[in-house]
Amino acid sequence: MVSEMTIDNEKLKLLANTIRGLAMDAVERANSGHPGMPMGTADMASVLWAHHLRFNPKDPGWMGRDRFVLSAGHGSMLLYSLLHLFGYGLSKSELENFRQWQSLTPGHPEYGLTSGVETTTGPLGQGFANGVGMAIGAKAMQARYDQKLFDYNIYGIVSDGDLMEGVANEAASLAGHLGLGNLIYLYDDNKISIGGHTDVCYTEDVSKKYEALGWHVQSIDGHDYEAVNAALIAAKSEKAKPSIIIARTTIAKGSPNKANTADSHGAPLGAEEVRLSKQELGCPTDQSFYVPEEVGVYCCQLMEQRVSDYDQWKSSFAKWSSSNAELVESFKQQCSAEISASLKKELIAFAEGVTADTATRALSGQALQILAANMPGLIGGSADLEPSNKTLIKGSPDVTREDFSGKNLRFGVREHAMGAISNGLAYSKNWIPYTATFLVFSDYMRPAMRLAALSHLQTFFIFTHDSFWVGEDGPTHQPIEHCMSIRLMPNMYLYRPADALEVALCYYAGMTRKNAPSTFLFTRQNVPVLKRDSNCTPDDILKGGYVVSGSDCSDLVLVATGSEVGIMQDVSEALSKKGISARVVSIPCWELFFEQDQEYQNSVIPAEARKVSLEAGVTAGWERVVGEKGLALGLDHYGASAPGEVLAEKFGFTAEAVLAKMEHWL
Amino acid sequence: MVSEMTIDNEKLKLLANTIRGLAMDAVERANSGHPGMPMGTADMASVLWAHHLRFNPKDPGWMGRDRFVLSAGHGSMLLYSLLHLFGYGLSKSELENFRQWQSLTPGHPEYGLTSGVETTTGPLGQGFANGVGMAIGAKAMQARYDQKLFDYNIYGIVSDGDLMEGVANEAASLAGHLGLGNLIYLYDDNKISIGGHTDVCYTEDVSKKYEALGWHVQSIDGHDYEAVNAALIAAKSEKAKPSIIIARTTIAKGSPNKANTADSHGAPLGAEEVRLSKQELGCPTDQSFYVPEEVGVYCCQLMEQRVSDYDQWKSSFAKWSSSNAELVESFKQQCSAEISASLKKELIAFAEGVTADTATRALSGQALQILAANMPGLIGGSADLEPSNKTLIKGSPDVTREDFSGKNLRFGVREHAMGAISNGLAYSKNWIPYTATFLVFSDYMRPAMRLAALSHLQTFFIFTHDSFWVGEDGPTHQPIEHCMSIRLMPNMYLYRPADALEVALCYYAGMTRKNAPSTFLFTRQNVPVLKRDSNCTPDDILKGGYVVSGSDCSDLVLVATGSEVGIMQDVSEALSKKGISARVVSIPCWELFFEQDQEYQNSVIPAEARKVSLEAGVTAGWERVVGEKGLALGLDHYGASAPGEVLAEKFGFTAEAVLAKMEHWL
Repeated sequence: MVSEMTIDNEKLKLLANTIRGLAMDAVERANSGHPGMPMGTADMASVLWAHHLRFNPKDPGWMGRDRFVLSAGHGSMLLYSLLHLFGYGLSKSELENFRQWQSLTPGHPEYGLTSGVETTTGPLGQGFANGVGMAIGAKAMQARYDQKLFDYNIYGIVSDGDLMEGVANEAASLAGHLGLGNLIYLYDDNKISIGGHTDVCYTEDVSKKYEALGWHVQSIDGHDYEAVNAALIAAKSEKAKPSIIIARTTIAKGSPNKANTADSHGAPLGAEEVRLSKQELGCPTDQSFYVPEEVGVYCCQLMEQRVSDYDQWKSSFAKWSSSNAELVESFKQQCSAEISASLKKELIAFAEGVTADTATRALSGQALQILAANMPGLIGGSADLEPSNKTLIKGSPDVTREDFSGKNLRFGVREHAMGAISNGLAYSKNWIPYTATFLVFSDYMRPAMRLAALSHLQTFFIFTHDSFWVGEDGPTHQPIEHCMSIRLMPNMYLYRPADALEVALCYYAGMTRKNAPSTFLFTRQNVPVLKRDSNCTPDDILKGGYVVSGSDCSDLVLVATGSEVGIMQDVSEALSKKGISARVVSIPCWELFFEQDQEYQNSVIPAEARKVSLEAGVTAGWERVVGEKGLALGLDHYGASAPGEVLAEKFGFTAEAVLAKMEHWL
Repeated sequence: MVSEMTIDNEKLKLLANTIRGLAMDAVERANSGHPGMPMGTADMASVLWAHHLRFNPKDPGWMGRDRFVLSAGHGSMLLYSLLHLFGYGLSKSELENFRQWQSLTPGHPEYGLTSGVETTTGPLGQGFANGVGMAIGAKAMQARYDQKLFDYNIYGIVSDGDLMEGVANEAASLAGHLGLGNLIYLYDDNKISIGGHTDVCYTEDVSKKYEALGWHVQSIDGHDYEAVNAALIAAKSEKAKPSIIIARTTIAKGSPNKANTADSHGAPLGAEEVRLSKQELGCPTDQSFYVPEEVGVYCCQLMEQRVSDYDQWKSSFAKWSSSNAELVESFKQQCSAEISASLKKELIAFAEGVTADTATRALSGQALQILAANMPGLIGGSADLEPSNKTLIKGSPDVTREDFSGKNLRFGVREHAMGAISNGLAYSKNWIPYTATFLVFSDYMRPAMRLAALSHLQTFFIFTHDSFWVGEDGPTHQPIEHCMSIRLMPNMYLYRPADALEVALCYYAGMTRKNAPSTFLFTRQNVPVLKRDSNCTPDDILKGGYVVSGSDCSDLVLVATGSEVGIMQDVSEALSKKGISARVVSIPCWELFFEQDQEYQNSVIPAEARKVSLEAGVTAGWERVVGEKGLALGLDHYGASAPGEVLAEKFGFTAEAVLAKMEHWL
């Protein structure tokens, strides 16, 4: 274990002041950035990294490591300085290139770019909630495999901005509910936000509030090394509650004229103030990006202890592996997230067994059981809509504070935290998390969805009740713009399957895509099994768009997604009675379809064909498919409260209505 | 004043049971809906409406009325029953048509549709935050005009689902900070959510938490009329803190087999259970939608008291009016929201004075001063980005708990509540609220933006830092999909002005549009003043899209918005040197432009022209403008951390880069 009992105030001070110097210099050189936060938190971060955080920079993905989440991501120079000093190979020249094109030191930490960065942070509150997901992930690994091996902690530094955000409040409530004793946050309570003193808008009793949420709360001076150390020791020994250490700090500590002012938050201190600060801190004023040799030696010594901890863990792991053959099998499968050879077959077999009209949310519920049986890392749940979303994994218990062995998470009515916590599970690896709510409430969790896409996380976002077919609940519950607006997010794959086979293959596609999140839209209402041409194969579906029927006719193409594909098949049948042949194309996944080569796209939707599209949502964006002369049918206004069938009539989502509009158009 | 001292338990019970009967019958008849909540809250709602809530159904817009917010909007039958019984003209047949096409009784309450509905609710947490906005609005009216006349209260019923939502937590924190003593929420603490007992996910100490947030907290039995009454009296007398009354209730109280179960939350009880419930409640089992005569008489009596309160207020108002001539002038202007004849001229004059390259956020800041000087109802602020958003109204104090006379609200880092609180101000009328943050964080407040659009509220959503030009802060802070995705929301008008004149006219357009929210996007970076053809008039801008230059050439059309219009002017100049003439079109507001008749649209962008578009965001959707053969230039991937100018080079947002791509395309 890393020693936590004997700290060296002098060395810690030197380390912290070195960080302050690096942060000032990097921001100054970039001529942009946030010096105040790293300077204010350098003391407590030094104690944490020197004496508590368990890691091995030579194996940054080491499963048994503690996680460090910089929720206040604008303080990125704190993290980059620590990575530089603690052997992560982040060079001085990278620090010099802070915030520059293609550097490893972007303005806010980016997961996957810089070794040692555990999460992409910057949008406030997200890191806070990610850490909760990581803590759940650790507890679940303990419950499933071994208490000791996965007895690691999630540490974080959070700011007033984080704590003000709703997503953090949601996550904090759930963390307290689940008693996440492995979660320890240092709250950088500097009383300064961009707008000035936090008193202008933030005067709640944070300590009392977190106690009410079931947290272990301590209040300390964040510049007192002994106090920080003692608080961390106490937090670690509290196993039944998450910990928040309210650390009173001074923003930009060390800057004689800008400390404790909002000026130091988001702008360089200025050359003269940097000089004065270095003077005050005892750093050489004639050097930039200066690291005293003593600090180098100190960090090396600390690292030696770390490596010995690491070696010990490795040998414990080897011992555990050799004596738990069966568990190891499942463990390996979970960690590799390898897709079993039979998964695709099982999914297709399930789909082929479906003959009756069924809601795709129900089909999703059945497919999820197959996924769960094949992929031990699947874990997730709904924001209090379990019975509607059909997302419970059968035969598995709920995750509770007493038992983390289950696959079912009860998120409560906390959509935003659900998304960000699931991302935390995805970040912590070994998990394929899923969320669930109604599509209209995707708006509540959009920031988390975007970060999943930006950070290349394999998070599954499941949304049921995907159109006006929600019916009686009315316009507040009927998505209109959501499907297309989620498609606009780069690196987000949105699936809107039309029947069982598409549900099965869409889930399969999502499972194989390890570097991007998947969004799945399912219907509330029953939809028919598509009548596919005999030459249509399941692999066609994996191309994102394909000819469902009418492969031999290509002049008139009817394109739809999800519940509207069945309507288009009816339209096609009615047309054929009039002697007009029309092809029906389904695009369950735009992103996949438009990734195919032009030749394939043309073979499905010929450029010269006359095209009609139908989707129960806005038509904007469909010009891409139907072209200038085509007919894009959809819903460009809000819905209404009435039974779904009535709305379908009123809104033109019947074969008759489509035919009538086409007649006019043809 | 409505009497609150002598309550009649028997009559209240009869009233409450009548409501229960109506709710059961309506849900049964609709075969969908939520009976549990109205049955659980009927008792406390009866006390509130019978003895506390100040209103006049004959004048539902009466300024001095109390507001009733049903944040748990799924319990809409509670509200509809009350409106039916208390003389709002909501007929029995409307109750019978609950959740049917074009009824006045949709699944969730819709503002503007049903007299007496103060807010559109359903998406959880929104109503909670709307009420906070209404309470701020009342306090501000008091501070500006008269303490007594606007000494009304905001009452609400909130559910566990509301309280779990982040937006409610943000709003609660701000409400406590501002000491909103005129805000009184009854928390329907029934311990049941859709997923089962709330204990599975929600175990925080609500009482302690709300105390920590600065609220006045009481805990009572929600079925004890005396206790409810006493708690409301105590809440009203607490003037320095918002109140939450934690009322322990039984969901579906009165249903012998479904009370206290999740089954009763969102589905009809079933005919037999309705019969048994009516039996238990003492309602005639052979009648539907039954209102005992006694209840009719009781409500009439209560209404008489109300009308006398109303008359008294009216006479106080008349007295105040006659003795405060100057204030009345401003008051009338604020309430009518009439646009002064000079506003447009002043805005244009300001714009014409701008000759140097300037960031549109700075121009927005200047224009806002003109708006504030002309429109006394303008009130708003930023989510802790005041210095960046440039949204402070000069010469006006911050709104604080001691002083509500100012125009500047300090929302803190609470984007979602900022949106929903601003909607509350818009709902409470007399206010034109505005919000501000970075565009990328529009995702944090999307649900509130959507509800503003759905409810036809004139809320201004200001977003600065509207593209990758954010620069060094990197991809987490650079909007890509946001501009287009906000355009997808029905009834949302999005403005992305290119220079001072467009900023001025966009704000003017937003000001004149009373029945829809406006979203304004502004740049962080400087942009040039456009070089307009001499025949281009300010009124062209109000059409949403117009020819900036090249009105005499129509073969090649360069279309852009915001910061990209200037680039297109450079492209056009470079082309003209090569002997190619090109028209430059700006579309500051898509919605307005596409509302123009086809002839005008064609006169700006001729159908047969070759078209190129440029916008610093996703290209999806631009097919609508450029057509199949056109060239849509934009950014279809996430941004990066580097200075804005570097990114502009790398991402192709320079005239040279556009020309190079066009060359290939031409």
